Amino acid sequence: MTDHDTICAIATAPGSGAIAVIRVSGKNAFTIFDKIFVPAAKGKTVSEQAANTVRFGAVTDDAKIIDEALVTVFCAPHSFTGEDTVEIACHGSAYIQQQIIQLLIAKGCRLAQPGEFTQRAFMNGKMDLSQAEAVADLIASQTEASRRVALQQMRGGFSSELVRLREQLLWFISLIELELDFGEEDVEFADRSQLNHLVNEITAHIAKLINSFALGNAIKNGIPVAIVGHTNVGKSTLLNRLLNEERAIVSNIHGTTRDAIEDAVNIKGIMFRFIDTAGIRSTDDEIENLGIQITYSKIKQASVVLLMVDITDSDHKIREAIANILENINAERQRLLVIANKTDLDNEESLAHRLAQLQLPVPQKDIITISAKHNRNIEQLVNVLLNHVNMQALDNNETIVTNARHYEALRNALESLERVKTGLADGISGDFLAQDIREALHFIGEITGEISTDEILGNIFSKFCIGK
Amino acid sequence: MTDHDTICAIATAPGSGAIAVIRVSGKNAFTIFDKIFVPAAKGKTVSEQAANTVRFGAVTDDAKIIDEALVTVFCAPHSFTGEDTVEIACHGSAYIQQQIIQLLIAKGCRLAQPGEFTQRAFMNGKMDLSQAEAVADLIASQTEASRRVALQQMRGGFSSELVRLREQLLWFISLIELELDFGEEDVEFADRSQLNHLVNEITAHIAKLINSFALGNAIKNGIPVAIVGHTNVGKSTLLNRLLNEERAIVSNIHGTTRDAIEDAVNIKGIMFRFIDTAGIRSTDDEIENLGIQITYSKIKQASVVLLMVDITDSDHKIREAIANILENINAERQRLLVIANKTDLDNEESLAHRLAQLQLPVPQKDIITISAKHNRNIEQLVNVLLNHVNMQALDNNETIVTNARHYEALRNALESLERVKTGLADGISGDFLAQDIREALHFIGEITGEISTDEILGNIFSKFCIGK
Repeated sequence: MTDHDTICAIATAPGSGAIAVIRVSGKNAFTIFDKIFVPAAKGKTVSEQAANTVRFGAVTDDAKIIDEALVTVFCAPHSFTGEDTVEIACHGSAYIQQQIIQLLIAKGCRLAQPGEFTQRAFMNGKMDLSQAEAVADLIASQTEASRRVALQQMRGGFSSELVRLREQLLWFISLIELELDFGEEDVEFADRSQLNHLVNEITAHIAKLINSFALGNAIKNGIPVAIVGHTNVGKSTLLNRLLNEERAIVSNIHGTTRDAIEDAVNIKGIMFRFIDTAGIRSTDDEIENLGIQITYSKIKQASVVLLMVDITDSDHKIREAIANILENINAERQRLLVIANKTDLDNEESLAHRLAQLQLPVPQKDIITISAKHNRNIEQLVNVLLNHVNMQALDNNETIVTNARHYEALRNALESLERVKTGLADGISGDFLAQDIREALHFIGEITGEISTDEILGNIFSKFCIGK
Repeated sequence: MTDHDTICAIATAPGSGAIAVIRVSGKNAFTIFDKIFVPAAKGKTVSEQAANTVRFGAVTDDAKIIDEALVTVFCAPHSFTGEDTVEIACHGSAYIQQQIIQLLIAKGCRLAQPGEFTQRAFMNGKMDLSQAEAVADLIASQTEASRRVALQQMRGGFSSELVRLREQLLWFISLIELELDFGEEDVEFADRSQLNHLVNEITAHIAKLINSFALGNAIKNGIPVAIVGHTNVGKSTLLNRLLNEERAIVSNIHGTTRDAIEDAVNIKGIMFRFIDTAGIRSTDDEIENLGIQITYSKIKQASVVLLMVDITDSDHKIREAIANILENINAERQRLLVIANKTDLDNEESLAHRLAQLQLPVPQKDIITISAKHNRNIEQLVNVLLNHVNMQALDNNETIVTNARHYEALRNALESLERVKTGLADGISGDFLAQDIREALHFIGEITGEISTDEILGNIFSKFCIGK
């Protein structure tokens, strides 16, 4: 990838629309447009056109007019990429878009690679790497939460935290180096308790960022919620309620659902990925048994497990179902909610009595009584799910890490700093401490892109769409 | 539909892209943006922003930032619609596009109806109705020819011809009215031979436009070409050759193709719609017989019929096939090409001899020898098809009528003028002549939209996409 040639790409969604925008960036952007754009009035060429202005005219290939279009000019460095840039808004026929792209290529442009405009913005110092990544996240955002987090990251919320961390770490190093300079004189300039305090502050900060990834990942990728339970307890009915559509086939026949049915729904800005599973029971049906195996694997992937029980079933059957699921989940990272269904078949008083008497091995707040069929208490269940996602950080505009690459780098940085802590406790010499701190700086530099390789950049930008 | 409220719509193709453009037009466009757009620097509001300039900033809903975006301002009457217009280029997430549209609606915009921006351009005198219709044609154009014709129409090529026709007709009326004024004095100011000359000129002009519709319709809707013939003569193989893909199932079994298979291919800027049909033969297979019935109906719809014959078949069989098709086509509006296939099974000398001896009842130039299997002479066939479309008018930049509504209006105008001709010959009085000419003017006014009803406009613009 070279940074000096002029690239072009369609920047709007593929297909036909009223208009389409084609973006051209690079040192020859203006001179290429001088060859193909005839302004409608007064005859100023694109090279002569003032920055940040738009003009109407004809896109021409020699004498042949391809289209009438609007051309907007941005002059380096005041453009998205930091280079001379022209954006052309043409009629949105897919054919015309292709004709203009072909014309641009014939006149000296190269078709941009995925993410190449943003990569140039990064290369030209318009944004750091975490901001560049947020551009792609913003374009991919489908919910309010993912939009908010991506926008905050793109606007530099995360970057400024990383700058602060970097400053703290550099301050730490400078203290230690002062000590090293005077080392022969056996003076401890860098007060060890001050160093201790500083490293604790930094690790606490990084740990907070690392912890935010659970929420960040949920926001970015959605929250997997498995709906499990015996056959015919109403799992598919609940799925349909939650999705607000008839997604799963519902019948009174035990074992109606064989495949795990999965669908995502945006509830108040959070994407939940509900997985309706085959009911668990002993059966000779081979296909159904395969489905039951899949159920157990889906349970492992879920961050919330909704165990449905039929309130009209025997105490024994309900207790057994709960015990079975408790054996198959990891209580530390998975939440179990017991959903007592078919409450329409019982009155409220006897229901409360029944639940109290059952003495289920789960907290009271994690037992929700519903009637999927009669749409009773579904909203309460949804609220429990929403509360499960601790949106506090989002509402406080705190930085939330959503990117697995950043998470990895932060974990590595934390590990280096843990060694610094131990080193301080063991009284090891300053140059060893400085080495670990430099390592932590290195990992943080990976996030912002101060430290990067072509491979890392290639990996990141290849996931962008063309035109961004 | 009111013209004074402010409308908004997504103008780029639906779905996710790097960027999307939302267009807002109407008297409150600027004040609405003042409420939701915070420019990044210097603080000029959209109302204060200079015409034809673009600014970077944040789209905000009260304190909440929805996105960072570019905003371009166009001031009435120098905009597409002729009204104050703002175009906002935001990040191309479908979610963000929707959020901005919802925000605009909350702040006083109305979602635009299909084609409403272009309709306002028409209402505000930015273009006539035929130009407005060309905007939609341009966006829908998929081939070079359809792009060229639509662009020429949009740029006013057709409109200026209509203006000329209108002037000629008005001149005609003025001559007649002069005669009427002096009618009592029995003076013939309007020299009848001059009137005759003028009406002939006008009708010739209109007739030429009417005749161009055959080409215009072919350019806009593609040229239907039916491939017919006995079973197993190689029709599906030829279709696959022409489409350059394995579209139809090919086998040696008679009657392999039962459904009519249709596919369009763009050959040198012209869209051909090839229809492979079930082979014609006597069979007891009911499904196949249904297919054969469909073949005959497809023949009626085709403007070119490719009758394939197997050159190795008997003279009788070949002659019979041609006679059968000649009975089923309308030689005036349909072209028959005889495609002698399987020439790979014969040598060239004996082939020429054979064809000469057969004395087929079609012109020599309409007999093409090919080998579909060995891809021989397919290019020659394609050239004959391309020549069938008389592109001369297109190459001469003549006006080509592509719109059935215009065609209808021109035919009506011509009919009125034919009455004028007869009237002149019969020496009827000037006021009757003037009445017919006014009728012709009316029909031409329908094309440009001088004469229009809400129903006509509704019909035209409802076929546009939203955002145009």
